Amino acid sequence: MKDVVGSPGTKTGLILRIGQCGFATASIALMVCAAGFSNYTAFCYLIASMGLQMLWSFGLACLDVYALRIKRDLQSPVLVSLFVVGDWVTATLSLAAACSSAGIVVLYSKDLSFCISENLPCGKYQLSVTFAFITWFLIALSSHLMFWILASV
Amino acid sequence: MKDVVGSPGTKTGLILRIGQCGFATASIALMVCAAGFSNYTAFCYLIASMGLQMLWSFGLACLDVYALRIKRDLQSPVLVSLFVVGDWVTATLSLAAACSSAGIVVLYSKDLSFCISENLPCGKYQLSVTFAFITWFLIALSSHLMFWILASV
Repeated sequence: MKDVVGSPGTKTGLILRIGQCGFATASIALMVCAAGFSNYTAFCYLIASMGLQMLWSFGLACLDVYALRIKRDLQSPVLVSLFVVGDWVTATLSLAAACSSAGIVVLYSKDLSFCISENLPCGKYQLSVTFAFITWFLIALSSHLMFWILASV
Repeated sequence: MKDVVGSPGTKTGLILRIGQCGFATASIALMVCAAGFSNYTAFCYLIASMGLQMLWSFGLACLDVYALRIKRDLQSPVLVSLFVVGDWVTATLSLAAACSSAGIVVLYSKDLSFCISENLPCGKYQLSVTFAFITWFLIALSSHLMFWILASV
């Protein structure tokens, strides 16, 4: 297998996982702090999806730390296949959650101008969605790297 | 290069492209027929994204027909790289458009119950979004096949 930057069991891989976990946590925290989020299905889905992403990335970060400490190679075809499927599923769910929430934020702030008239915390919604997009970008990066490693066998 | 089902210049590849083109066209047609779609940024973005998808898939379907007629092999690394990038970009844009529109459809039909009170054509919106999701599924399939072919070089 090729030793690519960001592959599992490397320092760059660990940094990527910590980044995903951090941005997903920030997205959840901001959305939970924004009043009235629970009235919207898309925002609840964003929290669920980012929660799943956080757990997945945290688990893989722990695995990376373990592999780095005992210097074990994590790049077996079975393990990488598992990472590919998991990364692809969580990446798709994260993008779907970020986009559906972004659709509502744009609707409220631009199309209907509800943010001012209904006094909604749109700033927090926007920041949460931005963090969700950054999380998606990082997990998409991981996902493509894993797929590349698997296909190069 | 491996000869995978659905790869460029094959009959299955052509069927996949025609499917993408057809569902994208159906999604645009339904959305354009639904009254008041132009008031929503997400629905306009859905039309733009499905339009791009339609053009891309139609172009590649024409290329497949040409390759099948003169029995030319389309699987050169440069061409496949171009297909990978194009497929990935259009797949991401299609999913983003489908999800942002789905966010608004769910908000209107479930969270706010605007469909009945405001007399909106939610049935058409829903069907258009469903077709957009089918388009995304087909283009994601193509995208992964192309990536697999490229990485197997």
